[in-house]
Amino acid sequence: HLFLNMNKQRKLNDFLLAVVKSIFQDMVSMDMLVMKVMNFAQRLVDADRASLFLVDAKSKELYATIFDVGNNGGKVEGDDEAQAPSTPKEIRFPLGTGIAGQVALTGEVLNITDAYSDTRFNRSIDQITGYRTESILSMPIFIRGNVIGVVQMVNKHSGYFTKEDEEAFETFAVYCGLALHHAKLYDKIRRSEQKYRVALEVLSYHNTCTEEEVRECIDKEDGLHVDLLQNYYFSAFEYDDFNKVRFAICMFTDLFGLSRFDKMSLIRFTLTVKKNYRRVPYHNWTHGFSVANTMYSILKRSNSVFKSTECLALFIGSLCHDLDHRGKNNKFMLDSESPLAAMYSTSTMEHHHFNQTVAILQQEGHNIFSKLSSSEYKQVLGLVKHCILATDLALFFPNKARLAQLVAEDKFSWNSMDHRLLLQAIAMTASDLSASAKPWDIQCETVKVIFEEFYQQGDEERTLGRQPMGMM
Amino acid sequence: HLFLNMNKQRKLNDFLLAVVKSIFQDMVSMDMLVMKVMNFAQRLVDADRASLFLVDAKSKELYATIFDVGNNGGKVEGDDEAQAPSTPKEIRFPLGTGIAGQVALTGEVLNITDAYSDTRFNRSIDQITGYRTESILSMPIFIRGNVIGVVQMVNKHSGYFTKEDEEAFETFAVYCGLALHHAKLYDKIRRSEQKYRVALEVLSYHNTCTEEEVRECIDKEDGLHVDLLQNYYFSAFEYDDFNKVRFAICMFTDLFGLSRFDKMSLIRFTLTVKKNYRRVPYHNWTHGFSVANTMYSILKRSNSVFKSTECLALFIGSLCHDLDHRGKNNKFMLDSESPLAAMYSTSTMEHHHFNQTVAILQQEGHNIFSKLSSSEYKQVLGLVKHCILATDLALFFPNKARLAQLVAEDKFSWNSMDHRLLLQAIAMTASDLSASAKPWDIQCETVKVIFEEFYQQGDEERTLGRQPMGMM
Repeated sequence: HLFLNMNKQRKLNDFLLAVVKSIFQDMVSMDMLVMKVMNFAQRLVDADRASLFLVDAKSKELYATIFDVGNNGGKVEGDDEAQAPSTPKEIRFPLGTGIAGQVALTGEVLNITDAYSDTRFNRSIDQITGYRTESILSMPIFIRGNVIGVVQMVNKHSGYFTKEDEEAFETFAVYCGLALHHAKLYDKIRRSEQKYRVALEVLSYHNTCTEEEVRECIDKEDGLHVDLLQNYYFSAFEYDDFNKVRFAICMFTDLFGLSRFDKMSLIRFTLTVKKNYRRVPYHNWTHGFSVANTMYSILKRSNSVFKSTECLALFIGSLCHDLDHRGKNNKFMLDSESPLAAMYSTSTMEHHHFNQTVAILQQEGHNIFSKLSSSEYKQVLGLVKHCILATDLALFFPNKARLAQLVAEDKFSWNSMDHRLLLQAIAMTASDLSASAKPWDIQCETVKVIFEEFYQQGDEERTLGRQPMGMM
Repeated sequence: HLFLNMNKQRKLNDFLLAVVKSIFQDMVSMDMLVMKVMNFAQRLVDADRASLFLVDAKSKELYATIFDVGNNGGKVEGDDEAQAPSTPKEIRFPLGTGIAGQVALTGEVLNITDAYSDTRFNRSIDQITGYRTESILSMPIFIRGNVIGVVQMVNKHSGYFTKEDEEAFETFAVYCGLALHHAKLYDKIRRSEQKYRVALEVLSYHNTCTEEEVRECIDKEDGLHVDLLQNYYFSAFEYDDFNKVRFAICMFTDLFGLSRFDKMSLIRFTLTVKKNYRRVPYHNWTHGFSVANTMYSILKRSNSVFKSTECLALFIGSLCHDLDHRGKNNKFMLDSESPLAAMYSTSTMEHHHFNQTVAILQQEGHNIFSKLSSSEYKQVLGLVKHCILATDLALFFPNKARLAQLVAEDKFSWNSMDHRLLLQAIAMTASDLSASAKPWDIQCETVKVIFEEFYQQGDEERTLGRQPMGMM
């Protein structure tokens, strides 16, 4: 007897292990898995039928999608395929109705020996199906304290359900719960990703340039003085946003030509970059453009020390380095528990600026790098990321110290990839902060808008009950 | 012996059941759970230490976050709290290195009796820690065919790890896998929702009206002839988009007054609704406005048969009923496997139009219903949903037949909520299609843009290799 019992126990273990494996190792549907578990449980407690009801929390009802396993005749032990549900039609009734409804409401197990002598029993389903219910073992399935369903065994073939049946059945209820929980998690992931894709679709309509803007750009192609742009005293404040788009296209064309770049994509890309700088006092399109303009000056005077992929990354990185900036610094994003800060705890905004750059490249007709080989593409994108992340000022001071030491010890080498990356990072910060080396009137104008933005953040922090930094 | 064995087996079962319950019933962290499982496994196979390594698929490395359980001395059985990891510092090495690296690479169990006589063993970690490794039992953890980690037991206290140890340990590896899989699913859900929130944040910048537009609307408040709008022959084609915003605000104010509605919210809401109609030939802001204008005519002439919440829902429902329409019908969305069709298999676009309405109401300063009581708010929103979903033409024909029958049998009752909803649905379709009852020139203009849009869909379907409907 003991040996038989142990054998039974081992069989149970093997089955449960197989269930757990199925849950996360196989691609099996959770419905099928729940069916399997219920079939096994039914045989174990020797019941004639098994039912599963799920709780619809919104309508406060119980409903059955897998209902009445086992009324197609007995199942041969060892069959690999779970039985298909025989009643695909959905059955619904309010929580509290019948035995299962009671269990769902109270969360307590019910072991009924004679259904018809129990006032809680709902006879109407028997009346519909013509089946005669006698004994019932009904058990709640919990997820995190809430009853999410009820599993029910009906009509033990010999006598009533025992205390042992209850115990064994409880184990199965737990594994049913696990499978259902998994089904819910997958469903949640699926729906979350669908919502995300819909949001991106809507966003892509609103944050890309219109074809009218593209046409306007083509029509007004001529009449730009590119030599103006090479003058370090060039002031971005003197031109409107649209003309700065034209200037940016000029600089790109002057640096890289158009043999390896599609002009229409370049126009769309630049217009959309403009659109994705927000209307904030300082970190707006004028700033993005100005930084790219300084980088243009650097590249024009750098005697080809940078390779073409590096130049591309430095220029596009500069143009895009503050995309979708909200006029608030990283600390503000962190303090205000912004979704962005939840994704990136360090260099929060810089990661976002880079992600926005990639998102723009992925818009239809916007990929200026589409003619590059896939290895060049990968390389440029990696460098753009490096360049944009380098504009986090928290990284500048250690970078500056490292470069100073390399130069002091005469150890800087153009052959070291690491040294080249360091120099690119410094070039990015140099361009980012270059307004302070511009003529006095440009400096004044820049400082004015910087402080306008700082004070806005400071005011907002005060409103939120936080203490702003001294200069804000 | 048999009885002892059975007792051990039962203990194992109880533990595994507790693990499964923890996974989905408790709020316990998965790290803690993995620690618990490893502690139990370690005691079961009588090992001195237990380690867990995870695979970093990108860098092709193994790393340990929970490393070396058990080197803080033995653990008393029955402790509820899992042991804290003693080496929080991360250890990393390439796949293929050492015993664990081998297991990760091959996916096969290794049971090593003497580590130092095995060439695959990596001595460097012993050299760092000063610990002497002798026997090792190392096992892969699979998720869907991929090794995602390695669990390892080190130094059995008496002799070597046996075949039985291997078997028992395998069970634990599966449960470790289950817990890790869960941790990954939760992480995936969390990240997916963060990405979604960031996308919504960016979207809300691009698809809401600017404060300049609001100011312009306030400045040009006067000079509108509201009586024009009550004329059924009013043509929306004669006014530009901005003036239609002013007209829409006029109609709302004329119908509902401003005592229970905030004027600034109304202006922002209407401007943003305009912005969220796309630049498509027919289903654009002009259409949304025209339908609202017909509904306005109906409501002005309906002798107060509709209650105020119903009027609100009918008018706002009309204004918003095609928000973010892409100039493609539901069938196109379904055929092109659009993310929207994945979310809603029937009335795909209508669900989206309603969701966009709610999204606009939720924008800062846009909630025109904010002064309603919460029960009125809920009621209006429910009715708006009903009204917008009713514009799915697939629902119109059965609705029309039902209403015709009710009227024919003289059974229509204003006291039946069901009948009222039916009439609202019909009023929505009547307004939606009202262009066909307008003067000839308006009809012509409307049919022209309808067919422009139909042909665009037809052309696109042909490009995609599908056969368009006859009229497209």
